[in-house]
Amino acid sequence: MTLPLAPELAVAEWFNTPTPISLTELRGRVVMLHAFQMLCPGCVAHGTPQAQRAHNLFPNADLTVIGVHTVFEHHAAMTPVSLEAFIHEYRLTFPIGVDQQGEDGPIPVTMRRYEMRGTPTTIVIGRDGRIRHHGFGREDDLALGAMLGSLLAEPTPALA
Amino acid sequence: MTLPLAPELAVAEWFNTPTPISLTELRGRVVMLHAFQMLCPGCVAHGTPQAQRAHNLFPNADLTVIGVHTVFEHHAAMTPVSLEAFIHEYRLTFPIGVDQQGEDGPIPVTMRRYEMRGTPTTIVIGRDGRIRHHGFGREDDLALGAMLGSLLAEPTPALA
Amino acid sequence: MTLPLAPELAVAEWFNTPTPISLTELRGRVVMLHAFQMLCPGCVAHGTPQAQRAHNLFPNADLTVIGVHTVFEHHAAMTPVSLEAFIHEYRLTFPIGVDQQGEDGPIPVTMRRYEMRGTPTTIVIGRDGRIRHHGFGREDDLALGAMLGSLLAEPTPALA
Amino acid sequence: MTLPLAPELAVAEWFNTPTPISLTELRGRVVMLHAFQMLCPGCVAHGTPQAQRAHNLFPNADLTVIGVHTVFEHHAAMTPVSLEAFIHEYRLTFPIGVDQQGEDGPIPVTMRRYEMRGTPTTIVIGRDGRIRHHGFGREDDLALGAMLGSLLAEPTPALA
Repeated sequence: MTLPLAPELAVAEWFNTPTPISLTELRGRVVMLHAFQMLCPGCVAHGTPQAQRAHNLFPNADLTVIGVHTVFEHHAAMTPVSLEAFIHEYRLTFPIGVDQQGEDGPIPVTMRRYEMRGTPTTIVIGRDGRIRHHGFGREDDLALGAMLGSLLAEPTPALA
Repeated sequence: MTLPLAPELAVAEWFNTPTPISLTELRGRVVMLHAFQMLCPGCVAHGTPQAQRAHNLFPNADLTVIGVHTVFEHHAAMTPVSLEAFIHEYRLTFPIGVDQQGEDGPIPVTMRRYEMRGTPTTIVIGRDGRIRHHGFGREDDLALGAMLGSLLAEPTPALA
Repeated sequence: MTLPLAPELAVAEWFNTPTPISLTELRGRVVMLHAFQMLCPGCVAHGTPQAQRAHNLFPNADLTVIGVHTVFEHHAAMTPVSLEAFIHEYRLTFPIGVDQQGEDGPIPVTMRRYEMRGTPTTIVIGRDGRIRHHGFGREDDLALGAMLGSLLAEPTPALA
Repeated sequence: MTLPLAPELAVAEWFNTPTPISLTELRGRVVMLHAFQMLCPGCVAHGTPQAQRAHNLFPNADLTVIGVHTVFEHHAAMTPVSLEAFIHEYRLTFPIGVDQQGEDGPIPVTMRRYEMRGTPTTIVIGRDGRIRHHGFGREDDLALGAMLGSLLAEPTPALA
């Protein structure tokens, strides 16, 4: 069985990065996606601080942590203006992209591509660009760390 | 020495109450004001859940807990529309008023009247309408409980 | 209905007090009894630190916090020698008495007099010497504070 | 530079294992040593539950978690009888060895061999039997998990 390739992000606006990020260009690195909403209590209490800790933990390793603001409810309450203040107040320093609004219905594009069930969702992508973990809700620090450590220990695949 | 009388609230919009609340009408009760901003991390992590717990703890006692959304920064990020979604997502059930915008400068009216230094601020008003506690930052549960229990034990003053 | 008078403590050995303590002599004060075992996880994680905080919170008020080491299992594992090291390592400064061994069975004397169900147990005694609260398990800080604040606000009864 | 080989444990008595454990026999596996004292608050609050979580997290992986009760103070207060009750009350299920008393001075043998500075101490040993981590005090879950995950991903060395 082959694990699915991680689909590309669809981002309307980026914060904390000078240039847009594409997963294709990150091939060869381990990527952790933290999908969240700024008014989701479980994100604010656990998921988002955990993503920041993961970002801080591996400053020189081949890990890229990316936040994706996947607003699927209360759209008028979580605009990019509000998100920017949230990022400032919570001292978040990892790159965060605003998920593109869907053309039909409230679910944004990246959220739909990844078939996420809600927020927070944690997706971990291996050096080969394949989805190794897809979790909804609270992630245990020790287990998440073990997964990241294990994937970082894998050799970088030869690029096709 | 006489403690200062609590000035009246200046509220632009109320949530979680069918009718506006005035401190004058609450004379004879103990009142706890929780001044907060929805994007203030210390409020979200400690102050606001504590206010909710205080509201839950004394359902039949003479305590009224009132939230005041005292936005003094990132005004565009914390509009009433965003606050309403915040109240919904965090399951807040105590009355919350939006502090009136100041005519000059970013500090709203109630925040200025009470000379608050930031958020969260906890103000406790005795049955006599006087300010018994004015605290900035995290309040210890045990100490706050003791203060509320002590003030609730005071006799209701005769109304002038 | 009259609340029951708090029975006297039966203590084999005291720590953190130069002289033995009797509840009779404390009449007129509010007393909080913290019954615990040094190897009871719920005591170590919650009850005992809470008792220490209550002791610290009211240094000049009429509250006396007393620990009672009510060993009812693993007696050989929780001797006074072990308790003394526990008190030292956990920096406990409130008076703690070792509950007297029962003559028949594992339940010590004070524990039996108060009909405690296990540890931790929190008993709060009013200025009149009567049991106002008898709780098994974790106590909420805010609720405990409110109870202590309320009882401390009661007038000292005339001594008969 | 070659990392030092982990010295053998010197254990007087084992709990939670039918037979004594030797590091030599564990060569080829990753080993996490949790050195603790049952009356050390930092151990009880953080280190020991973390060791239990690490033990639970990798039930089928090549990780062995071993507790070492390195009593270097209050010896009379932390005898094997007390430790056994502690293990029972805290529901610890990983193997725990009582460090052998030193011939001169209070420091037990294993603690001295590893030059530990106090408790809790976390030592992680790679599949090659070498010490990869030697930490005193609180260990971050995410960082510890990453280290264990990384070491578990290493190939088993050929036995000499």
